[in-house]
Amino acid sequence: MAKYSIGVDYGTLSGRTLLVNNDTGEELASAVYEYPHAVMDERLPSGKKLGVDWALQHPQDYLDVLKITVPEVLRQSGVSPADVTGIGVDFTACTLLPVKADGTPLCFLPAYEDEPHAYVKLWKHHAAQDQANRLNRIAEERNEPWLNNYGGKISSEWAVPKIWQVLEEAPAIYEAADRFVEAADWIVWFLTGKESRSACCAGYKEIWNKKTGYPSKEFFAALDPRLENLAAEKLGQTITPAGECAGPLCEKAARWTGLCAGTAVAVAMIDAHVFVPAVGIAETGKMLAIMGTSTCHMLLGAEEKQVKGICGVVEDGILPGFFGYEAGQSCVGDHFAWFIENCLPASYRDAAAAEGKNIHKYLREKAERLKPGESGLVALDWWNGNRSCLVDVDLTGMMLGMTLLTKPEEIYRALIEATAYGTRMIIETFREYGVEVNEFYAAGGIAKKDPMTMQIYADVIGLPVKIAGSDQGGALGSAIFGAVAAGKENGGFDSVLEAAEKLGKVMDTVYLPDEDRAAVYDRLFAEYKILHDYFGRGANDVMKRLKALKKSVQEG
Amino acid sequence: MAKYSIGVDYGTLSGRTLLVNNDTGEELASAVYEYPHAVMDERLPSGKKLGVDWALQHPQDYLDVLKITVPEVLRQSGVSPADVTGIGVDFTACTLLPVKADGTPLCFLPAYEDEPHAYVKLWKHHAAQDQANRLNRIAEERNEPWLNNYGGKISSEWAVPKIWQVLEEAPAIYEAADRFVEAADWIVWFLTGKESRSACCAGYKEIWNKKTGYPSKEFFAALDPRLENLAAEKLGQTITPAGECAGPLCEKAARWTGLCAGTAVAVAMIDAHVFVPAVGIAETGKMLAIMGTSTCHMLLGAEEKQVKGICGVVEDGILPGFFGYEAGQSCVGDHFAWFIENCLPASYRDAAAAEGKNIHKYLREKAERLKPGESGLVALDWWNGNRSCLVDVDLTGMMLGMTLLTKPEEIYRALIEATAYGTRMIIETFREYGVEVNEFYAAGGIAKKDPMTMQIYADVIGLPVKIAGSDQGGALGSAIFGAVAAGKENGGFDSVLEAAEKLGKVMDTVYLPDEDRAAVYDRLFAEYKILHDYFGRGANDVMKRLKALKKSVQEG
Repeated sequence: MAKYSIGVDYGTLSGRTLLVNNDTGEELASAVYEYPHAVMDERLPSGKKLGVDWALQHPQDYLDVLKITVPEVLRQSGVSPADVTGIGVDFTACTLLPVKADGTPLCFLPAYEDEPHAYVKLWKHHAAQDQANRLNRIAEERNEPWLNNYGGKISSEWAVPKIWQVLEEAPAIYEAADRFVEAADWIVWFLTGKESRSACCAGYKEIWNKKTGYPSKEFFAALDPRLENLAAEKLGQTITPAGECAGPLCEKAARWTGLCAGTAVAVAMIDAHVFVPAVGIAETGKMLAIMGTSTCHMLLGAEEKQVKGICGVVEDGILPGFFGYEAGQSCVGDHFAWFIENCLPASYRDAAAAEGKNIHKYLREKAERLKPGESGLVALDWWNGNRSCLVDVDLTGMMLGMTLLTKPEEIYRALIEATAYGTRMIIETFREYGVEVNEFYAAGGIAKKDPMTMQIYADVIGLPVKIAGSDQGGALGSAIFGAVAAGKENGGFDSVLEAAEKLGKVMDTVYLPDEDRAAVYDRLFAEYKILHDYFGRGANDVMKRLKALKKSVQEG
Repeated sequence: MAKYSIGVDYGTLSGRTLLVNNDTGEELASAVYEYPHAVMDERLPSGKKLGVDWALQHPQDYLDVLKITVPEVLRQSGVSPADVTGIGVDFTACTLLPVKADGTPLCFLPAYEDEPHAYVKLWKHHAAQDQANRLNRIAEERNEPWLNNYGGKISSEWAVPKIWQVLEEAPAIYEAADRFVEAADWIVWFLTGKESRSACCAGYKEIWNKKTGYPSKEFFAALDPRLENLAAEKLGQTITPAGECAGPLCEKAARWTGLCAGTAVAVAMIDAHVFVPAVGIAETGKMLAIMGTSTCHMLLGAEEKQVKGICGVVEDGILPGFFGYEAGQSCVGDHFAWFIENCLPASYRDAAAAEGKNIHKYLREKAERLKPGESGLVALDWWNGNRSCLVDVDLTGMMLGMTLLTKPEEIYRALIEATAYGTRMIIETFREYGVEVNEFYAAGGIAKKDPMTMQIYADVIGLPVKIAGSDQGGALGSAIFGAVAAGKENGGFDSVLEAAEKLGKVMDTVYLPDEDRAAVYDRLFAEYKILHDYFGRGANDVMKRLKALKKSVQEG
């Protein structure tokens, strides 16, 4: 009798559910529900205005994803709920909400429904930058040992700055919140009926470490005396490794989803991190890049190394038994989109139309014909700052080598190459700190749809590039964790390794580096590196000075 | 009885003649003749194919300019030839032709009409780069004292590399040529019936110096033993300062032009250099920029200083009694045109059309609204190399500061600002070497038509910017030299100073630097300078390495 797993992937604007056959890996049905409240960045549902850089969500939307899409995949596939052995959930992070001790979001309570701080702060809520800056300064002054696990900087997107913002701007909300919880963990709480926290969320977003726990009371008190007991009183106490079962589905959630009570519910995961088993990775040395508007890099290591400028290293954070490393590039697809929107000349649109071609295709064909080095261009991929390994949002873009004969496709290709050099910088930094990287996987829209870019990546990094096989890698990854939570005896798997081997997918196409092209890219990367260090490591802080000047001009 | 002067301005594609009233400065009539042979860069008239980077002209076209346009301005104005007291001529340079001892161009002789080297080599004939490179190496090795009068480098556009190319590729033509002569001097030779040479052409293009003459025989022999006597045998021997009379119009030329024999003919000038009196400059410290696709800077000094990286300093080369300094920027209008052609997005064209606006106007309005520093961008204006003060064709463009919010108008404005910073570098270099610059004049299409750019220049260089008043500054300048050649007793002028005061024109509009904007530009220029020196003076030769790599890739 075939058994099945369900994965629910919570994105920024919608939730997507996938039902997978545990034996064949077949993806039988999927359903998407778009959040009715979407991202609230201007007003609350009540009409109340929000501040600059705010981004909230409504937790009811998350529950409705379960109520609508889970029954829908059961209906579509005809699979009996009794044959669904496990369910896994992944979520954007740090996407955080204040709740009561029973899990009720504060914003569900009439007393708080007009209070912005009672809602979910979405990952891209950027209004806690001031708190993040102060936190980093204090952590550095105190020489906090955990800081180097996060590349030396805590992001304003993460939990502590967001919670500190609540305390400073709405102390009554801070007081009323019994817990601050990641939406990922909150959904698992809803599904199981009991509070639990995942090492993935806690490790990457809440400054938690398996060996040392949360930062000390002294550190929190140094931020604000009122925060002294934050960790003990308002964060999760039991942290469970990735790949474990959080508990059985509770009766209430069974009624809500149409699944059977008792179905295994996996420990929650962050959306990017579930892609790792979804491409079949369950061992060290295989880097996965999830390439979208920005890129997330995932890598498993056998030891904990403090690698300069990465986003985080978390024991059991991606797969149990490994140290999960995360790094990132702030601007990849966004980079190319910027070019298309701002730099692609009218004459190209005309020429594409005359040839009856899509403009992107037209441009890509021209860029594809160029040989490495032919344009004479090199760019730094910092249009949106640098996440790894410089961790500096104030860096900006740079391009050089332009002549009067430089063509748009050359600039376009140089931007793509720049992101590949950025990836190579990250790989080389991992190696420098003793973390091996010897295979490269890519997931996301660019990986699937842009062979030119993937070939450039293979040639630049000098490794074969494999491509994620599923179009729904997030939901598939969550289904894998659901199947592992169920265990073999229930028709699932006993380890993520087994499940990843069976259910993880890559495409047949592998992009292999070409020796000649790679040799030219070695020379170009050497130039990139010199410029990277010159502009990025303090020799010439012109980018920061220009940014400061720009700010003062705009304000004054 | 009013007296008149005529100026003939030989450009790259046409000759333009202007008739001016010596008392009022009124421009009474003008006529243009386009060269039927235009620029021959692919084939000779016979159909014979030319090499890469060749650019030839046919001298018959130059004579026809005189035959057609001079009678035409007389006809239009109704001025009697007897009242035209002087004629002046300016020409592109170094535009060079081989002639027999009587002035007959070799290409007029049937024996040579199928021989490319017998024709005029136009200024932008770039096929003698190899000779120029060898010349510069040898001159440097020999420590030739004149090299520093030319910023340390002789251009492939100048006379000696071009003549050396003739010798190496067509020794019979070299042998058959009794003289190599600038087209400017050749026209004056035609007009007066006797050979003469101008200090302007000889000084800026033939490595001649008033005190030391041409380079030594030993230097020429070091290039090639066959060149040992080049200066003595094939270049001009009597060199006349700018502002002198070359002689009276001969009978033959009088018949050809419809002017009276005996009319004073001024010593020939280079086209850019005649603009100086045309804007009324006849003293030191006033820099004139002639802004077109590239920019030429003219400046009079009281002493000979060896200013690093300028194009040349020539005693009596612009006006008699002064040291005429020339500097240049390789890429100004070309820079902006490159942007318009390659970087202006389709959406802007649509928006301009929707508002019923010309696309340039639309873009300029957007760029004009930006405050200095607001874009956060800085560029190096080296899309076509750097003429002054780095004298390096292998430098390329650079821009930094881009973010995902960077707009096309910001890039456009940054390119304009970059050329203004380039001008300020030149001004500061002159000052550093003790040559004063305290006023700034601009001529050419950009000066007249682009108030935004001129205001940026004023704000960046911190000097008032005055604009040339005549639309035909070249022809007006030549007419001024014609009037001076005639002398006061014949209804002309006894000095260029007098003539420039009377006939030179600037517009009423003066662009004054704004203190606040200038203060911001001081900060931006400081950044430009750091980048200029880093990329331009050897700290990071990435541009040269990329160019070399590009070449090797293109060559396969």
